[in-house]
Amino acid sequence: MEWKELAVDAASPVPLYRQLHDHIAEWIHGGRLPDGAKLLPTRELAGLLGLNRTTVNAAYEILEKEGLLQAHVGRGSYVCAPRHAATLDWESRFRGAAPDPDLQQALWTSSEDFISFSSSRPDQEIFPFEAVSRAAAHELKQHGDAILQLGAAEGYPPLREFLHSQMREEGVAGAGDELLVTSGCQQGLDLVAKILVAPGDTVLLEDPVYPGARDLFLAAGAQVRGIAVARAGLSISELEQELSRHHPRLLVVTPSFQNPTGATIPLDARRELLALAARYGVVVVENDVYAGLRYHGDDVATLKSLDGDGRVIYLRSFSKVAFPGLRVGWCVAPRAVVRRLIAAKQLTDLHTDQLSQAVLYRLAEEGSLAAHRRVVLRHGALRLEAAVKTCRAEMPAGVEFLAPDGGMHLWLQLPAPLDSGELLARARAQKVLFIPGKFFAVSRSHHRALRLSFASLTPDKIRRGVGTLARLIRAQSPAPAEMREGVPALV
Amino acid sequence: MEWKELAVDAASPVPLYRQLHDHIAEWIHGGRLPDGAKLLPTRELAGLLGLNRTTVNAAYEILEKEGLLQAHVGRGSYVCAPRHAATLDWESRFRGAAPDPDLQQALWTSSEDFISFSSSRPDQEIFPFEAVSRAAAHELKQHGDAILQLGAAEGYPPLREFLHSQMREEGVAGAGDELLVTSGCQQGLDLVAKILVAPGDTVLLEDPVYPGARDLFLAAGAQVRGIAVARAGLSISELEQELSRHHPRLLVVTPSFQNPTGATIPLDARRELLALAARYGVVVVENDVYAGLRYHGDDVATLKSLDGDGRVIYLRSFSKVAFPGLRVGWCVAPRAVVRRLIAAKQLTDLHTDQLSQAVLYRLAEEGSLAAHRRVVLRHGALRLEAAVKTCRAEMPAGVEFLAPDGGMHLWLQLPAPLDSGELLARARAQKVLFIPGKFFAVSRSHHRALRLSFASLTPDKIRRGVGTLARLIRAQSPAPAEMREGVPALV
Repeated sequence: MEWKELAVDAASPVPLYRQLHDHIAEWIHGGRLPDGAKLLPTRELAGLLGLNRTTVNAAYEILEKEGLLQAHVGRGSYVCAPRHAATLDWESRFRGAAPDPDLQQALWTSSEDFISFSSSRPDQEIFPFEAVSRAAAHELKQHGDAILQLGAAEGYPPLREFLHSQMREEGVAGAGDELLVTSGCQQGLDLVAKILVAPGDTVLLEDPVYPGARDLFLAAGAQVRGIAVARAGLSISELEQELSRHHPRLLVVTPSFQNPTGATIPLDARRELLALAARYGVVVVENDVYAGLRYHGDDVATLKSLDGDGRVIYLRSFSKVAFPGLRVGWCVAPRAVVRRLIAAKQLTDLHTDQLSQAVLYRLAEEGSLAAHRRVVLRHGALRLEAAVKTCRAEMPAGVEFLAPDGGMHLWLQLPAPLDSGELLARARAQKVLFIPGKFFAVSRSHHRALRLSFASLTPDKIRRGVGTLARLIRAQSPAPAEMREGVPALV
Repeated sequence: MEWKELAVDAASPVPLYRQLHDHIAEWIHGGRLPDGAKLLPTRELAGLLGLNRTTVNAAYEILEKEGLLQAHVGRGSYVCAPRHAATLDWESRFRGAAPDPDLQQALWTSSEDFISFSSSRPDQEIFPFEAVSRAAAHELKQHGDAILQLGAAEGYPPLREFLHSQMREEGVAGAGDELLVTSGCQQGLDLVAKILVAPGDTVLLEDPVYPGARDLFLAAGAQVRGIAVARAGLSISELEQELSRHHPRLLVVTPSFQNPTGATIPLDARRELLALAARYGVVVVENDVYAGLRYHGDDVATLKSLDGDGRVIYLRSFSKVAFPGLRVGWCVAPRAVVRRLIAAKQLTDLHTDQLSQAVLYRLAEEGSLAAHRRVVLRHGALRLEAAVKTCRAEMPAGVEFLAPDGGMHLWLQLPAPLDSGELLARARAQKVLFIPGKFFAVSRSHHRALRLSFASLTPDKIRRGVGTLARLIRAQSPAPAEMREGVPALV
């Protein structure tokens, strides 16, 4: 047994004990370590791999918990191979493509000493735990029977009515619209795919786009096509081309603080988009998940509020502006659409969790959510400023980026011939993480781009992290003279 | 305008104001009440329809909230027709079949003065609100940052580990198995369909079966085929026939306290089922949603624990044994399957709500769930006894039913030529509700059968409700002599 092949990668963000565990588990599942095989004692293996013994102990302990090892006191640890080694060829039975392991790896953010720009999530340091706890106690005391009992597929009635009236005030919900509570925007997209997309249908997405939207429509069997996103959001001329040539079923768009570019579509372009959608008879899904996260300037009217003929399905969520761990979002659409979405919701998970719906209703109703949003906006503005200023001050010429007015990310373009995947490998060694552009690709490669999600980091960490990236880019950038000649136009 | 056509049905379980609201909304959406039309004053309409004025007021108020009416003080209420009357032909755009409005109607249980056997849910009178509230406060105080932050698709780590170790103790999880937290068993089925079913695939179900399972696989494009269920669960001989003739992808089965029949498959038949599944290479989904609800006798080993070659995907939930309003269940399956389910889960709703996961972890860990289950079992045994004894004492000869040892339902067969749909119409007039057999149909009609869900009703209500049904059946039953001649064999 070549125990040395269990060597781990100290530069990886994955904890060492977890890497070691994964290697050994793979050996067991793959049959390389057969049933009854004796493992090297922890002290020996630690010495061989140059690891601390507690690291090896931790890996063995998890394997034991998982039933893959059995420890006999004084005799060592023995492999318990799974009863069903590989009788069933599961891979041949799965429908659809396998998940991308590289993206999972890129999203890994659990290691504390890394500065991770990977995840588009709020800062947990500012969560108002006590208000949440009080809201839960209050709601359970008043309505515990209704909250813990089976609920309505369309949502917990008090929350649903509250949101509907808020959406009417904002001009999002019009007469004839209804509202459905969902388990976040991701489920809004899943339900839309279920009622409107059949295998082979064409769906238009922004390019680059949030991978969770792209992969969901791909899993539903759709053909996805990307429309370039520039400073002013998706390209209206390319949209018209795609609409006229490919007769898509759906156009899915995040008009405000788009993920990953941060771009916002101006009012005029929104009207053009809707006019084109009407001309070509396409349904528009407006993913407004970053609504409420504007740090500067004035909000632009939603597509839904500008919609003249009821073709926009509007999705929103508490995830970005409040707490992603409570899976509550909502959807506003014409009555006929919401009726179908409710039926699909019932088959998907019966209804959204009611404790979280009740908690968010209470927090919204008593004003705590509005107060929390003011804190979020104050923190967000500081973080955006730290990211933008550090980029401006330290990034070498040739690096381009948008400075958005809100949301959670910056989108950077490296000068040719740099590749953001290669940059990530070097950044990881310096304990800085981000998501390379290729993971957001639809029809283009985006291999020179990268997304920096700044919302969950302190301004200080943002400055240090962006500073590190700037140094790494400078170290690999071609001389300025070369650059000016060789850089292709940005799309 | 023929205002009298707005007449409502006093015998319906739908509240009168809601019926009136729905009628008027339909008239507005259908254009019968055009934009700007003036509604009859509430006093006049109430007089015309023989209703209380507060009923009419309530209907108008909801219409106003929905933006379909505008009230002008002193002048009356005017229609605000939807901006987009019917520009988009949504019906032609929807994929899949429309939901069954009759089933929705049959499930309606909100009216308090009805005795409803319709819904398979626990009794909310015994929910331990204070323990839930304390658990929420405790978890938020200790781990609020993790709970409210974006979580892991596979589940909240403490709950996931707790459940995995519980499943190992019960023999459900073996070496090589992993566990995924889901938003209830319904989502378990949805995720399984996503990774294992493509349009045109054949899926075997019990017949009769829980409609939410049937409709989910139909919506995924599957061909569903039903296998007869008798006293000892699904028919093994019919299973073999179906397996050999139709090469299904999946067999979905609830071996214990099946919904709707209450039937439990004995140990020997479970072994035969697994041997057949292995011979014909079919994946088995074991929906164990009623696990833990046995009031008498000993548990039968799960299919998962008897599974010799890793082909069983095991689903379970807190919904029936604790609180359906907290949407938390789990799935145990071989590692390769769980990896795929996790990827599908991420695209479906990112992860299950973490507040409810944390609350259920705390309640399970501190023993409160076990204590609650003892209460549930005590109450369940009394309810089952009330239902069975009243059936035995009062149902006329020719009515057949199973007396299960647990779960939430009785399945009754009426003597020919009775029809359970007709019985429901008469029962509704006596304020008793149940679900007719036809709604559980896969390949057979079940029009003489009905499901009585007893778990959420007091023994007294059960006795009164079953008594009412028995009287209605007796009133329509043919004379005993006729019956003996004419009754066809039960399947």
